[in-house]
Amino acid sequence: MSADTTSTTPQSNGDRVDGRTPQQLREVSITRGWLDHAEGSALVEFGRTRVLCAASFTEGVPRWKKGSGSGWVTAEYAMLPRATNTRSSRESVKGKIGGRTHEISRLIGRSLRAIIDLGALGENTIQIDCDVLQADGGTRTAAITGAYVALADAVTWGKRHTAIPSSRTVLTDTVSAVSVGIIDGRPLLDLEYREDVAAGTDMNVVVTGSGDFVEVQGTAEGAPFDRAELNSLLDLAVAGCAELAGIQRATLETTPGRPAVGR
Amino acid sequence: MSADTTSTTPQSNGDRVDGRTPQQLREVSITRGWLDHAEGSALVEFGRTRVLCAASFTEGVPRWKKGSGSGWVTAEYAMLPRATNTRSSRESVKGKIGGRTHEISRLIGRSLRAIIDLGALGENTIQIDCDVLQADGGTRTAAITGAYVALADAVTWGKRHTAIPSSRTVLTDTVSAVSVGIIDGRPLLDLEYREDVAAGTDMNVVVTGSGDFVEVQGTAEGAPFDRAELNSLLDLAVAGCAELAGIQRATLETTPGRPAVGR
Amino acid sequence: MSADTTSTTPQSNGDRVDGRTPQQLREVSITRGWLDHAEGSALVEFGRTRVLCAASFTEGVPRWKKGSGSGWVTAEYAMLPRATNTRSSRESVKGKIGGRTHEISRLIGRSLRAIIDLGALGENTIQIDCDVLQADGGTRTAAITGAYVALADAVTWGKRHTAIPSSRTVLTDTVSAVSVGIIDGRPLLDLEYREDVAAGTDMNVVVTGSGDFVEVQGTAEGAPFDRAELNSLLDLAVAGCAELAGIQRATLETTPGRPAVGR
Amino acid sequence: MSADTTSTTPQSNGDRVDGRTPQQLREVSITRGWLDHAEGSALVEFGRTRVLCAASFTEGVPRWKKGSGSGWVTAEYAMLPRATNTRSSRESVKGKIGGRTHEISRLIGRSLRAIIDLGALGENTIQIDCDVLQADGGTRTAAITGAYVALADAVTWGKRHTAIPSSRTVLTDTVSAVSVGIIDGRPLLDLEYREDVAAGTDMNVVVTGSGDFVEVQGTAEGAPFDRAELNSLLDLAVAGCAELAGIQRATLETTPGRPAVGR
Amino acid sequence: MSADTTSTTPQSNGDRVDGRTPQQLREVSITRGWLDHAEGSALVEFGRTRVLCAASFTEGVPRWKKGSGSGWVTAEYAMLPRATNTRSSRESVKGKIGGRTHEISRLIGRSLRAIIDLGALGENTIQIDCDVLQADGGTRTAAITGAYVALADAVTWGKRHTAIPSSRTVLTDTVSAVSVGIIDGRPLLDLEYREDVAAGTDMNVVVTGSGDFVEVQGTAEGAPFDRAELNSLLDLAVAGCAELAGIQRATLETTPGRPAVGR
Amino acid sequence: MSADTTSTTPQSNGDRVDGRTPQQLREVSITRGWLDHAEGSALVEFGRTRVLCAASFTEGVPRWKKGSGSGWVTAEYAMLPRATNTRSSRESVKGKIGGRTHEISRLIGRSLRAIIDLGALGENTIQIDCDVLQADGGTRTAAITGAYVALADAVTWGKRHTAIPSSRTVLTDTVSAVSVGIIDGRPLLDLEYREDVAAGTDMNVVVTGSGDFVEVQGTAEGAPFDRAELNSLLDLAVAGCAELAGIQRATLETTPGRPAVGR
Repeated sequence: MSADTTSTTPQSNGDRVDGRTPQQLREVSITRGWLDHAEGSALVEFGRTRVLCAASFTEGVPRWKKGSGSGWVTAEYAMLPRATNTRSSRESVKGKIGGRTHEISRLIGRSLRAIIDLGALGENTIQIDCDVLQADGGTRTAAITGAYVALADAVTWGKRHTAIPSSRTVLTDTVSAVSVGIIDGRPLLDLEYREDVAAGTDMNVVVTGSGDFVEVQGTAEGAPFDRAELNSLLDLAVAGCAELAGIQRATLETTPGRPAVGR
Repeated sequence: MSADTTSTTPQSNGDRVDGRTPQQLREVSITRGWLDHAEGSALVEFGRTRVLCAASFTEGVPRWKKGSGSGWVTAEYAMLPRATNTRSSRESVKGKIGGRTHEISRLIGRSLRAIIDLGALGENTIQIDCDVLQADGGTRTAAITGAYVALADAVTWGKRHTAIPSSRTVLTDTVSAVSVGIIDGRPLLDLEYREDVAAGTDMNVVVTGSGDFVEVQGTAEGAPFDRAELNSLLDLAVAGCAELAGIQRATLETTPGRPAVGR
Repeated sequence: MSADTTSTTPQSNGDRVDGRTPQQLREVSITRGWLDHAEGSALVEFGRTRVLCAASFTEGVPRWKKGSGSGWVTAEYAMLPRATNTRSSRESVKGKIGGRTHEISRLIGRSLRAIIDLGALGENTIQIDCDVLQADGGTRTAAITGAYVALADAVTWGKRHTAIPSSRTVLTDTVSAVSVGIIDGRPLLDLEYREDVAAGTDMNVVVTGSGDFVEVQGTAEGAPFDRAELNSLLDLAVAGCAELAGIQRATLETTPGRPAVGR
Repeated sequence: MSADTTSTTPQSNGDRVDGRTPQQLREVSITRGWLDHAEGSALVEFGRTRVLCAASFTEGVPRWKKGSGSGWVTAEYAMLPRATNTRSSRESVKGKIGGRTHEISRLIGRSLRAIIDLGALGENTIQIDCDVLQADGGTRTAAITGAYVALADAVTWGKRHTAIPSSRTVLTDTVSAVSVGIIDGRPLLDLEYREDVAAGTDMNVVVTGSGDFVEVQGTAEGAPFDRAELNSLLDLAVAGCAELAGIQRATLETTPGRPAVGR
Repeated sequence: MSADTTSTTPQSNGDRVDGRTPQQLREVSITRGWLDHAEGSALVEFGRTRVLCAASFTEGVPRWKKGSGSGWVTAEYAMLPRATNTRSSRESVKGKIGGRTHEISRLIGRSLRAIIDLGALGENTIQIDCDVLQADGGTRTAAITGAYVALADAVTWGKRHTAIPSSRTVLTDTVSAVSVGIIDGRPLLDLEYREDVAAGTDMNVVVTGSGDFVEVQGTAEGAPFDRAELNSLLDLAVAGCAELAGIQRATLETTPGRPAVGR
Repeated sequence: MSADTTSTTPQSNGDRVDGRTPQQLREVSITRGWLDHAEGSALVEFGRTRVLCAASFTEGVPRWKKGSGSGWVTAEYAMLPRATNTRSSRESVKGKIGGRTHEISRLIGRSLRAIIDLGALGENTIQIDCDVLQADGGTRTAAITGAYVALADAVTWGKRHTAIPSSRTVLTDTVSAVSVGIIDGRPLLDLEYREDVAAGTDMNVVVTGSGDFVEVQGTAEGAPFDRAELNSLLDLAVAGCAELAGIQRATLETTPGRPAVGR
């Protein structure tokens, strides 16, 4: 939030709308333990995009998993009405959730389940809430990146409160995500909103700490893209996620409540 | 958010659950301009209660006011699912808004309309969104108090962008709100959640900067209350709102984006 | 309903829109046992405002009260589409309940729970339905006043059918409500619709038979109100509720199904 | 409502559950002008079944009829939650309207449109609301019978207020409805609730004042019925509707607000 | 679907819009076992009207029938958005089911329950889904006629899988349905869409294989109809349903998946 | 549908659950003009998966495109309740659309918009409905593949009816889609349901006739996947889509209403 929570200032010698180079992330900041009640929480910022991630740990599982011996992780994503430049109606007021909201909620849940051993979690549920307080492109990728930190703290909470045996390795890896896209034929990392709108092809990539893919979602907004473009986008994304994984690790070594330094 | 945004530390020599005296507010902090897009915004904190208030200014009015020459102010209140100690379901997922949410949204709207000259606003609409990021009692009173600051900045924005003639006095007064209640026969100011639950009588009072009432909502949770109790609660509330009005004034003199100091 | 159910004709020597004096109630009539099926029921009329109150007694309590040994009272308020001068859409057709409806339903429930000993009720539920057949101002206060009568009959029914031990005192007091408001600087009792629209400040007050407050809800529709105005409104309301309490007592002494005479 | 509004007492020498003969209607009462605001209204009672019918006259038609030169009549039917012996949930609270409600609303609308000349009505809309205050079988047939009276008064209102030229004949006939059914092989007229439950075949018949059919809806609840049974049910229904048409005519000759006497 | 699934070509020497005589059905075709997963299924075609009927057999009954020893049959009807000449909105998108859909679903369920011995079915549920793929009038009657075939196959499935004792006679008769109507004073059988729109009176009749009535639903769209017209419509419908019953019997003698030949 | 609509019988010498080789499509059949009313339609079958695609052409565009001179293509996907092995509840009955449905509807719309020149379409809207009649894996890819054919016919219809100038090239390419996945370390083309469930990684790929990508959606259901696996899946998908594009071309050369032959 306030500028002093991040100690590194990205150098702006590139020629993108905000001065970044093509392969440069925005300033990234993750504040652990932003909430007092939640078992895990993180306020994650990718530039002006700010997402509050909360992890709620509850013993027990949904009915369809009862007796399975294994747990469940699920996620809900939402956006405050004035997160965007023009106010949108609340989905609670409209009485239904839009397709985009559903789609992103499901993506976050799948991404986190890819790096958690549900058997080791035992019959416990972790519910992740990612609420976008301010949106400037890349909200879903910021959400996944912050949600991992909240999830990790909720797992730690579960062990400290003996709901999970402390000997179990519950998280098998880390996970982060970043968007990439092609503007004027040039592949760019971590699009902010103005770039997102201009991009012909847009891809969200979810990558583990080990560098493997959890999700690859590429969409041609205008002209279809070819195999070479796909490859260069994947290269950018893998490098960006490696950087994010480093920030996540650094964050989890801080005292909760104090922001980790990004970029 | 971070402790250093507030310069005064309340002295804790009282005997309430958190050490306050009966007539003492929690530490109050208002951060103006917390959002980059909104025409006015404030993150307001009453102790651990944190509410993000955004004011959206749009030219034009709802259909039923068209051609009236006067404007409109309305408000929506909501709570993030993990604002509370135990996670609640999202109203967007349930597909309907609960009675409490409706009730508070209407209260905030009425409170703000009491101190704005809708004729001077002209055919413009200001939509206030109050989203509770963390709840620890008094969310509706914090919301009203913060919403006033966001509203004031949105009015200023409207004048700067010539949607409102700069000569008009749009805001006729300030407005703030506080909760009061009786615990064990003792009237207390600004209840935090644990006190709220214990209170036999609970009152939310909305007061203008001039000290007049906009709303008085007193409810006997257990035994009915008598006229003397009512009077002592009103005394406490009027004094508390005067203190909040001072913080609002101080906040509006700061540079936006920097928190005003409260107590 | 028909004029002959009320034997007293109010004297109309005042100067209000309908000839009343400032401290005069409209003609009030309560018909007990208007319904054949309900365990308690009352058709209450405050002038042209007509509300049908039904109390449904069922053994057992909602899940969250099971095993507590104590009961529950809840209420729902609604308005027929053509109760008002211009037809409104049905909330069932719109698929959602408006904020005003929710707010009043909650108020009625709280008001009744303030004068019932839920422990003495035992694990039984009384559901109150207040349906406004015709609206002319004061529907919520008429609803509370009539609902008390329906509730009392439902408690009697519960004792007669041995669901409640006959030795228990379930109702600890009576409760009634009235609206008051300020028009042209003058405090008035029991506003009819035309007065309600004209009032600058509007207050609904719920008072027990003993004269204590259950709810005080004052709202400045236009200019804020000061402490002196608040006090004079409370004086009027307390006197009006005392009169209503007398009518309630008289009603409960009649044979069910025959209207009690009010004023 | 109260017994004295009806001057004839039906003779109870039959052997049905309430002493009627097979071809005998329940005591029928129609109170015109029960509401002060509606352009037409009637409280109709078939024994303990009580339905409040309101007709709302508005100038203009729904969009799809604009410019057609002809009007529209539509109806909504609903039941208060405690109209029945056991309380049902409100459809507004459930957030959706059940199939039965929809079906009956449509039936009432079609029945009324069969006897109104929409061209003569001009571009005006009459909206009928039939709200069941108490249900004891035959609510839809009572609703149609009462709705006709409310409709007739709304048409008169439209002429008096010059929205309809007074020379036009808008209503081409009267319309009423009754239920018939077979219990233990015996055809019975105007089933009350206990009979409705016991009937093997159940038929609702809507008949004009001239004796022609508007709707015939026969349903085998258990065993299918043959042509002879169908014929005897139709005979009973036609005779019953002729009696109801007489009561409607008598009602419309009374001063509004005073009940017509039926049986 | 393709023309060769039906071996009889109706002779078109009548003078109706498609050349039929007044008492002639459209070409009717029923394809059993059109679906691979469902326990019973049929694609039924009445001319261009095509309805896919699926019967889902599940052991167990809804909660309110548990322990009764008898089963349940229920039905849902729906129309694809482009079944009709002009696309209609999806009810799932609108978030609610229209009255017509509800009404027809209930009719199909009642019709099937009239010819099944629920006691013999045992505590099993058969859910019928009738989805209109293409609509050209008579969709509800085609649905009932096809649903019977799907139901019969689901009962056979239940016996083969020993959920129903093979000795029980579950289906007590067959059931089919047809529409009839009066155009220009002439009663016609099995109306296609253009005729349906033109008809003054419209009747849907559901008849058992034995020739008894399950449902008779006649509606005057314009002028009311008299007893003689009613009788001639019933005569036509009974003859048409006898013909449909023959096609159903022929269909059930075919190997599933191969269409039976209709007229 | 019936076996004779497809002239080629795939050779089953592979070792997949249905005997296919890893790079073999299921038998694919596309029946053009399956519906009589729609401006374009196709029943597409990928093995047992059957999707009915309808294209509705309407002049005019949604409000937000008015005056832009260009058109719009949108899509809705849904599944009949008994398309699957176990019946699912209808979304219209549940009153809301699930996330999966939303997600696929959006995917189909984006895929088609990638190969249509909306400017050349002019201010016309084509609405695609894809209804799954039977599901056996790959419903979204079959839907896209069939939707293209329906779209092409709707464009032709628009030209024939002069809503689109015949000189414009509206479709810039063809588009088809296929699923691929990894089972036991082996990449497989066009997964049927049993394979879909078993696959560790699952990818849907949408490819133009020219071989470029419109969408790439890869998801690790279990273990994350590496770059080499991603590449081999893309190779399979590109080859499969080339084959599908050939079938689409062949289909569009047939007389509408007659199935094209697939593999």
